[in-house]
Amino acid sequence: MRYLLLVLLLLATQLKAQQSDETQIKNIYNEALVNGKGYGWLNYLSNQIGGRLSGSVQAQQAVEYTKEVMDSLGLDRVWLQPVKVPKWVRGTPEFAYLESNPGITNNVPICALGGSVATPFGGLKAKVVEVNGIEGLEALGREKIEGKIVFFNKPMDPTNINTFQSYKGCADQRYSGAAEAAKYGAVGVIVRSLNLRLDDYPHTGAMSYGDTPVEERIPAAAISTNGAELLSTTLKLNPNINFFFRQNCKVLPDADSFNVIGEIKGSTYPNEIMVVGGHLDSWDLGDGSHDDGAGCVQSMEVLRLLKATGYKPKRTIRVVLFMNEENGLRGGVTYAEQAAKKGERHIFALESDAGGFTPRGFSFDCDQANFNQVLGWKSLFEPYLIHLFNKGGSGADIGPLKNDNIVLAGLRPDSQRYFDHHHAANDTFEHVNKRELELGAATMTSLIYLFDTYGVVPSSN
Amino acid sequence: MRYLLLVLLLLATQLKAQQSDETQIKNIYNEALVNGKGYGWLNYLSNQIGGRLSGSVQAQQAVEYTKEVMDSLGLDRVWLQPVKVPKWVRGTPEFAYLESNPGITNNVPICALGGSVATPFGGLKAKVVEVNGIEGLEALGREKIEGKIVFFNKPMDPTNINTFQSYKGCADQRYSGAAEAAKYGAVGVIVRSLNLRLDDYPHTGAMSYGDTPVEERIPAAAISTNGAELLSTTLKLNPNINFFFRQNCKVLPDADSFNVIGEIKGSTYPNEIMVVGGHLDSWDLGDGSHDDGAGCVQSMEVLRLLKATGYKPKRTIRVVLFMNEENGLRGGVTYAEQAAKKGERHIFALESDAGGFTPRGFSFDCDQANFNQVLGWKSLFEPYLIHLFNKGGSGADIGPLKNDNIVLAGLRPDSQRYFDHHHAANDTFEHVNKRELELGAATMTSLIYLFDTYGVVPSSN
Repeated sequence: MRYLLLVLLLLATQLKAQQSDETQIKNIYNEALVNGKGYGWLNYLSNQIGGRLSGSVQAQQAVEYTKEVMDSLGLDRVWLQPVKVPKWVRGTPEFAYLESNPGITNNVPICALGGSVATPFGGLKAKVVEVNGIEGLEALGREKIEGKIVFFNKPMDPTNINTFQSYKGCADQRYSGAAEAAKYGAVGVIVRSLNLRLDDYPHTGAMSYGDTPVEERIPAAAISTNGAELLSTTLKLNPNINFFFRQNCKVLPDADSFNVIGEIKGSTYPNEIMVVGGHLDSWDLGDGSHDDGAGCVQSMEVLRLLKATGYKPKRTIRVVLFMNEENGLRGGVTYAEQAAKKGERHIFALESDAGGFTPRGFSFDCDQANFNQVLGWKSLFEPYLIHLFNKGGSGADIGPLKNDNIVLAGLRPDSQRYFDHHHAANDTFEHVNKRELELGAATMTSLIYLFDTYGVVPSSN
Repeated sequence: MRYLLLVLLLLATQLKAQQSDETQIKNIYNEALVNGKGYGWLNYLSNQIGGRLSGSVQAQQAVEYTKEVMDSLGLDRVWLQPVKVPKWVRGTPEFAYLESNPGITNNVPICALGGSVATPFGGLKAKVVEVNGIEGLEALGREKIEGKIVFFNKPMDPTNINTFQSYKGCADQRYSGAAEAAKYGAVGVIVRSLNLRLDDYPHTGAMSYGDTPVEERIPAAAISTNGAELLSTTLKLNPNINFFFRQNCKVLPDADSFNVIGEIKGSTYPNEIMVVGGHLDSWDLGDGSHDDGAGCVQSMEVLRLLKATGYKPKRTIRVVLFMNEENGLRGGVTYAEQAAKKGERHIFALESDAGGFTPRGFSFDCDQANFNQVLGWKSLFEPYLIHLFNKGGSGADIGPLKNDNIVLAGLRPDSQRYFDHHHAANDTFEHVNKRELELGAATMTSLIYLFDTYGVVPSSN
């Protein structure tokens, strides 16, 4: 009899907890959809400030603006964490054309890849050899590559439902294409934009020369997908055409910048820290609304939603807007270094860096016990059509926090439209839908709420 | 022992069926994403033809164009089914302003509701009374309404995750507002656009005078959400302002039109008919890309995908592009009448009429046994992030086919952006994403494939 009472009491407690979770989550979604502030903040970040490349004036303006926003939220503490960032500048607009016969030219849209060296001052003109990704270089060999421009034209695979998988399948030609092609004596590289659709926007993004000596570094640019199709077709008709491009980007000395941080102190376990964040820097071609203005305003909105719904966190919840994800990850690395130095205990970190589209769920980088705890919360998310709970990656900026005792997570929005805009001039505010952005913020807040309420499962190590 | 063998055999058969279903569905998605034709067809329908209001030249062009497309698919039969449709024309552009003092005016964007009468030739100017939906009329009574324009300003509820629920919550003020307000002596009605966002597009849509005598019918127009906010704010400052609007829309005699139909004859059960469709007519303000050009091209794509993947249906699969969903439903009614007359046996019908956005699942109007069969297929859809299988409505055009022996279904795409465009001038091609459209077509085809393979569960009646 006493046992039965105990079981009933336990069930009743669980039911009450379930109901209070349901209520709190409903309150979070309602507040986000009725009074959401993120869209307005993003409007300012995108339309009043614009693209925020590390070391730029705009990046500094974004630091100041988001600190102001955080100051207005009534958090327990807001501060700037110094970060030394690389500074690469694009210079004057790039220019390129195909020359099928002397004087017969077709202009094509290109943009320098982030980190690339310039072409010679007057531009670079050479014959072109097309390869289907880095793996195509070896078969051609030095004989067919030397003195030429290598055209990496491996397209993103349209058959993956998760478009990030297709991105991973060919991002290496952008990141390492120049370093690899230089080994065969190439004089420059042109890379098909990482975009699943045919259009006229070239997509930039980080590249690295690895250990290529400075004097052997060759310029690298992205060409729009329509441009890539034109170049490929023209090469099939006449392999002897010339390609010309000119860019005068360069690397300047490292610059001073900041991560922007705000926190609500935990009432019960103030030393257990939970991070939610995105990256404040962006590429320079568009205004970085999806990548990653969206993630920044959603992360600030998480703390606002907790306060607006009257929730008092038991653990310390910290929003971190990381600087320099795109070309260096210095913000993420610095944050983790400082945390280690101070002996801070991070138990959970969530990043939103996949666009401000309708949220579908999360992916988790954690042990099985913690993942099982998350799966137990699935039904709480069902009314909001959040259905995707996978093990996998989390986010670049929170990656350096990884250890055996932390749960890392990444918001997973619908990915179909992301690469239409990623790193291109059309990553702009009008392509973000207010409700989709707000649903993402509410979904993140709900997960933060649950981890705050139930904590993480201690590591068995 | 013999029993064990039988069980093993059964399990092996089921496993093989499961594998062949997985393979066929994978083939369908790959074909849709690599060689999809729907986006190109929609480009023509939207950009070469445009808005397709029933009885218009464009509606007739759309009939001819989609018949041509079907003719090119190598179907077993393609035909036009005559449908008599109502013909309402908008006339010259509508015009409206608020007049806070004589001569002090603010123009606001409006559009006539479909089916409305015109204002007097010189326009209509009157005082305004604001109500929060039809339910607000009674409290005001004839005394406060007579001689005035009723301004229905009930907004869509932003807290519903499914935006169609919010639409249902206030569509009555658009559909019946004029008939109801006329009972209290109103001289005209202005209705807040059914849009969750604040912008400058007025959204049209069907309205009905019910049994209001012709001489008592009053003109009805929609005002953009920004216009509605302005009007409401101004009324709070000064309840005595005038509102002026002018529209010269009218009803012409019924016109001849068609449903466009194509079919693949079933190899084993040719008399079991499965329908997939959308509606070919649209409103006239935009080009009807989401509503419902998307559903039309997806439905044609279903038959193309079946053929392209080498699948030979056991049952007859028919694509039906219905005419006149928006202001009459004559196509849907005619189709069902003709089917009944010919004694055709329809076992399944699927409609896509909720936009060309990322598909999330289906809703079903059927008995529990058939719904259970569908739930058994859920895991086949998981790799494609299709997770929503609800009981509920299906589609307006296939509704007239309803009986105890048919399964009705509606595609359920992500609904967040739908009402930004619905019935407005910005329902245009550039707001449709190619991959999202293609994923919808593949999802529909996969469901059709499963129903063709396994049939429906016979009614227990």
